[in-house]
Amino acid sequence: MAFLKTNNGKVYYEVHGESAKTLMILNGIMMSSASWKPFLTYLVNHVKVVLVDFFDQGKSEYLDADYDQTIQSELVSDIINGLNLKSVTLLGISYGGEVAMNFVTRYPGVIENLILANTTAYTGKQLKAIGVNWIHAASTYDGKKFFSATIPHIYSTGFYESRADWLEAREKMFDQLFDDRWYEGFIRLVRSAETHDERENLKYINVPTLVIGASEDIITPLSCQKEIVENIPDSKFLVIENCGHASMYEKPTEFFSSVIGFVYTAGCTFKI
Amino acid sequence: MAFLKTNNGKVYYEVHGESAKTLMILNGIMMSSASWKPFLTYLVNHVKVVLVDFFDQGKSEYLDADYDQTIQSELVSDIINGLNLKSVTLLGISYGGEVAMNFVTRYPGVIENLILANTTAYTGKQLKAIGVNWIHAASTYDGKKFFSATIPHIYSTGFYESRADWLEAREKMFDQLFDDRWYEGFIRLVRSAETHDERENLKYINVPTLVIGASEDIITPLSCQKEIVENIPDSKFLVIENCGHASMYEKPTEFFSSVIGFVYTAGCTFKI
Amino acid sequence: MAFLKTNNGKVYYEVHGESAKTLMILNGIMMSSASWKPFLTYLVNHVKVVLVDFFDQGKSEYLDADYDQTIQSELVSDIINGLNLKSVTLLGISYGGEVAMNFVTRYPGVIENLILANTTAYTGKQLKAIGVNWIHAASTYDGKKFFSATIPHIYSTGFYESRADWLEAREKMFDQLFDDRWYEGFIRLVRSAETHDERENLKYINVPTLVIGASEDIITPLSCQKEIVENIPDSKFLVIENCGHASMYEKPTEFFSSVIGFVYTAGCTFKI
Amino acid sequence: MAFLKTNNGKVYYEVHGESAKTLMILNGIMMSSASWKPFLTYLVNHVKVVLVDFFDQGKSEYLDADYDQTIQSELVSDIINGLNLKSVTLLGISYGGEVAMNFVTRYPGVIENLILANTTAYTGKQLKAIGVNWIHAASTYDGKKFFSATIPHIYSTGFYESRADWLEAREKMFDQLFDDRWYEGFIRLVRSAETHDERENLKYINVPTLVIGASEDIITPLSCQKEIVENIPDSKFLVIENCGHASMYEKPTEFFSSVIGFVYTAGCTFKI
Repeated sequence: MAFLKTNNGKVYYEVHGESAKTLMILNGIMMSSASWKPFLTYLVNHVKVVLVDFFDQGKSEYLDADYDQTIQSELVSDIINGLNLKSVTLLGISYGGEVAMNFVTRYPGVIENLILANTTAYTGKQLKAIGVNWIHAASTYDGKKFFSATIPHIYSTGFYESRADWLEAREKMFDQLFDDRWYEGFIRLVRSAETHDERENLKYINVPTLVIGASEDIITPLSCQKEIVENIPDSKFLVIENCGHASMYEKPTEFFSSVIGFVYTAGCTFKI
Repeated sequence: MAFLKTNNGKVYYEVHGESAKTLMILNGIMMSSASWKPFLTYLVNHVKVVLVDFFDQGKSEYLDADYDQTIQSELVSDIINGLNLKSVTLLGISYGGEVAMNFVTRYPGVIENLILANTTAYTGKQLKAIGVNWIHAASTYDGKKFFSATIPHIYSTGFYESRADWLEAREKMFDQLFDDRWYEGFIRLVRSAETHDERENLKYINVPTLVIGASEDIITPLSCQKEIVENIPDSKFLVIENCGHASMYEKPTEFFSSVIGFVYTAGCTFKI
Repeated sequence: MAFLKTNNGKVYYEVHGESAKTLMILNGIMMSSASWKPFLTYLVNHVKVVLVDFFDQGKSEYLDADYDQTIQSELVSDIINGLNLKSVTLLGISYGGEVAMNFVTRYPGVIENLILANTTAYTGKQLKAIGVNWIHAASTYDGKKFFSATIPHIYSTGFYESRADWLEAREKMFDQLFDDRWYEGFIRLVRSAETHDERENLKYINVPTLVIGASEDIITPLSCQKEIVENIPDSKFLVIENCGHASMYEKPTEFFSSVIGFVYTAGCTFKI
Repeated sequence: MAFLKTNNGKVYYEVHGESAKTLMILNGIMMSSASWKPFLTYLVNHVKVVLVDFFDQGKSEYLDADYDQTIQSELVSDIINGLNLKSVTLLGISYGGEVAMNFVTRYPGVIENLILANTTAYTGKQLKAIGVNWIHAASTYDGKKFFSATIPHIYSTGFYESRADWLEAREKMFDQLFDDRWYEGFIRLVRSAETHDERENLKYINVPTLVIGASEDIITPLSCQKEIVENIPDSKFLVIENCGHASMYEKPTEFFSSVIGFVYTAGCTFKI
């Protein structure tokens, strides 16, 4: 709906709803603010939703040179300040979860709760190698090859088997949307995650945190979520079964039950 | 707070809050309506809470002879009718989950959503054998022996290791509460579950259902929850990690995030 | 060491050792008989080892047209007959396991025991999509791109993290070995697996069978191994923890302990 | 077959077979040397088997006072010295595995390989509480109550469901075998494990080690096996699926394939 001018470039954002509680959502690497559209009608019943496109994503500025994820943290900070957001639950999925960890470490005391879904505290050698392959695939500028290199690892076996039609429709839709600029932005986004390593900073994260994992996530497997849970002091952990990396698409009811449930429950202390 | 006279005996129930959405909670076998007290202040912000003691439990009637779980289903039906409850989400944990499956099968069309936590569709030979042991333990009328036979299998290894003080305090509290009548009621409750087998009926359950499992539940392990999920058509599945059978005590934030999240999300259809 | 002329083309095979028990090994899709060299000194202490290259693999004939896996089953049959092999334990890993299932179904009564490692009874839609991606990668005839598209999904996260040196050395070695003929053979091999579906035939397999799975195998995940175990009547199941798809390389001691242990144990009946 | 007089009392042992490799087996707490009888014909084809009854077990001396597991380590040492055993693989299951860890720590340089099955490096608070319950049950001197308190947690759900006949027969057999002396010995054995804690010593164990876990072991769950594997430097790990604590009875083929396979493979170095 609107743009915010920042030192690093203009940032596209959307605000939906008027709740006192704010849910700010940070996208995965292949997503944009538009990806959350199917869930907005539901979400605004519970929270003010703030969507945002990262640099090199959606309608935000496409950059000229490489960077690391701290530039996206600045973007998050600029939006929170620019819109004067209060009582923020920050939800990051995958790449967005990496930025969320980066942000809470660099900007402590700003948000109220944190939700990390299908993400990792560290770009390990295997994940880096997967990124290199994604860069190869994006460099073809060929939708068929790009999807073939990425999608089979993002969804679970069961979802693939039962929802092949949906995956095909999605492939076609994306093929039309993705132009050269998109692929080049995607490559810079992948590169910006290569040095991601917040493992040593997790223990200082001092907001109530929910970690959402998926049993068949092979991009950021459960072991990654467990590492986060074991190191963030006040962290909770829910696992979505029979689900791959794109959990909000594969299992939206489980995903949003967890998210909205946590928004309402995070601050409660139960004296049992 | 109040009693309802039914054909099978008087039933104790409590109603808290005034929401349009009702959450009716069915207890586990060693619990009572009093067990949910630490969570009421939180719950009433979101739902009208209806608590109820089963026959042979808490302040409801203690019966003279053996019975099976259909008598508890009648109790649930009598409460729903007697209080004219509408828009009910029925949440059953363990024994309460067994009764919930029994109820939705025998009284279709009454409730809106179902939440089954740490339960099983069938009392298998192993669970029956555990029940026999619990009956042996209850027959001693000796709190120390009773807790020794039951508690170590109800909580997870990690909870036992870190919360030994809480478990000890709980043991003392229970030892004072449990009199001969309690132990005899407990024995009849165990017996009433021996013939529980709703496996063939699951496929007819046609309300949105959330199944909550716990990764270290050894009374009703994840395989039991999976059987339920695979057979109830519109079922969702969340797993609480590092958690034993008494999930609402071990991981209250995860448990109630899932429950309240589902109450708000169950009816939504996401067009992705 | 030698070639056997068959109706479908010449087949390369090796025989090592002189034990009365024969272990015939069927390779994964990127392997060849040479892949087992590091283990031969060990293996010949326990079994006569028969290695064989599939069509379009190693030193066997490269074919002109597409085919399905039954041609590889014929190859297995031709070798067993041609060498007059007796008391055969057939060990197939990945693609080799698929052929092994195909073979025991089409040639019943020939082998004594079956070992299936990191394999699947069925090429599902996701695995087919991964195959399509591998074909894209092979079509570049570019080693770097080919390895980038395949290797990150074949080894476990932990192996990747700790053995990056070994993986790099391997990449260089392969890059020299793989010529156009290799890539074209590889593509036909991938295609030959696309129609693989032995699910309905598993129940007729009547030889003692060991299934070896790996906890972090994402090409043929544990759910695939479980399906095999649940359907082959006399099947046993061992899982190698912290291990990806190439289990004999990641965890050779666990892999060969299981294999050689089973060769010695499969026929035993324990009257407990 | 024979007794060895030691400073702590006489020890019953059996030697079977004449292989150059020795497999010395340390029993679980409810077992004795007689428990391995069904497997001897098989085992002697591969190893010289040395069976031994711990103090307060089988035909070894029953003691007058409490002790800890180091007394059982001395027993192991006395047998190895007394029989002049060479090239020993020490296999300990459950309590026997605990003693095995105690032994290799206190008597380094004696054995060649170590196999730890369904055991733990530490008697945690939950396991201690289970032990207290077992002591309560043994104190009744009543077979029915004793089995009811112990057996349901030792076997897996699936085994219970499918092999109820075997479990019943076993209960009857045990009921005849177990006299007052047995129950009193059992109680002292349970007590001797209460202070078991070898966690800090695992990193010094410098023999090739195989850890065997079972997916449904709820007495010493997989987390216990993982702790051992992560801390013993040269350790391998195999998991038997769909199997409870008594893995050699539930899944003998998997168990002995792993054991004998490891005896043959442990010393091999594979240059991959």
